[in-house]
Amino acid sequence: MQLYNYFRSSASFRVRIAMNLKELPFDYKAIHLVRHGGEQRAPEFLELNPDGLVPVFIDDSVDPPFTLTQSLAIVEYLDELHPEPPLLPATAIGRARVRALALNIACEIHPVNNLRVLRYLTQVLKIDEAAKNAWYRHWVETGLLALDRQLAASPMTGTFCHGKSPTLADLTLVPQIFNGWRFDCDFTGIPTVMRVFDACMALDAFQQAVPSEQPDAE
Amino acid sequence: MQLYNYFRSSASFRVRIAMNLKELPFDYKAIHLVRHGGEQRAPEFLELNPDGLVPVFIDDSVDPPFTLTQSLAIVEYLDELHPEPPLLPATAIGRARVRALALNIACEIHPVNNLRVLRYLTQVLKIDEAAKNAWYRHWVETGLLALDRQLAASPMTGTFCHGKSPTLADLTLVPQIFNGWRFDCDFTGIPTVMRVFDACMALDAFQQAVPSEQPDAE
Repeated sequence: MQLYNYFRSSASFRVRIAMNLKELPFDYKAIHLVRHGGEQRAPEFLELNPDGLVPVFIDDSVDPPFTLTQSLAIVEYLDELHPEPPLLPATAIGRARVRALALNIACEIHPVNNLRVLRYLTQVLKIDEAAKNAWYRHWVETGLLALDRQLAASPMTGTFCHGKSPTLADLTLVPQIFNGWRFDCDFTGIPTVMRVFDACMALDAFQQAVPSEQPDAE
Repeated sequence: MQLYNYFRSSASFRVRIAMNLKELPFDYKAIHLVRHGGEQRAPEFLELNPDGLVPVFIDDSVDPPFTLTQSLAIVEYLDELHPEPPLLPATAIGRARVRALALNIACEIHPVNNLRVLRYLTQVLKIDEAAKNAWYRHWVETGLLALDRQLAASPMTGTFCHGKSPTLADLTLVPQIFNGWRFDCDFTGIPTVMRVFDACMALDAFQQAVPSEQPDAE
């Protein structure tokens, strides 16, 4: 299996955690999102993903090799093919809740602060650095505050976002915290989120997936 | 089953299509996103979804009733509980591909143009109407262009995004086209996307889910 990814990309980080939890080895293919004008915009890479986004996953155990984009779809695929340990709960309600928590981060918080969106703000709309950083913090902080309320209110929240073992929701949450730290987000008002974050970071699978541990880290 | 939704919301529209395809009756609970300063920000609604977003789905056939947010999680839940007709393919590769196509729209195109993001652009960043509309069109047009390339390149694309029957990918795509029309997006360069759109719109389940057919339509 091959994973085209970037050490700092949150979406790449999600997939790395899933691969580690399942103890699946993979070829780490580094795509630098800034260097050389953005390697994700090179023609060879756009062949793999016309969106020019990481991660891209290739399952070369099948013929022809199967190329897949979108981190949450990659994680669900890995979970179907390599079910242990499961990254989704055993009940329909549990699975639905975990998917909703993950999508909450992946759809409502992360995309608005994607590199290309931030570039549009500064390069096209001529927003200054301070306003860009305020934009960033606004979406992360309001998004995680709402998530914290949701987690705190549900009896299904356990050591992790859902129950006693890490799921798709946790592996989406952790990269968002790292991402927020880079922009000095205020995480004081989200105790449940941070408690879950700490539980995740006590596990090797999460530790080994962090940006600073990757071969392309700077 | 209850669906808190808004006639014009793309995410609500996705769930309506799924309910119609599966012929599941539901109580239509209208939440007006503009009127009364936004009914999604009323305390009663924030109890249901601290994010203040539609749709919110309630399955009141279980005890206690199960409240679920995030349109794609709602559709997967419906598909697990009411499997006919299936909204995901029968193979792991097929499911992964359909999820990735849906996430491509739901994560990369739609969130950047959400009502609250557009409001931040105009109210906080003081972007004028023309620049806001250009922002909108930029994300829809570049996103759908990349999606069109992906669809056109894959032998798995059929009458619909995947094969011969509508899936999660199609019910995510169709609302994005309606959404783009409102902002005069240019759809001339995406023939495969538009061919699939036309195939969907030939079906009653899609027709009956369009914004203008809803009880709260204006």
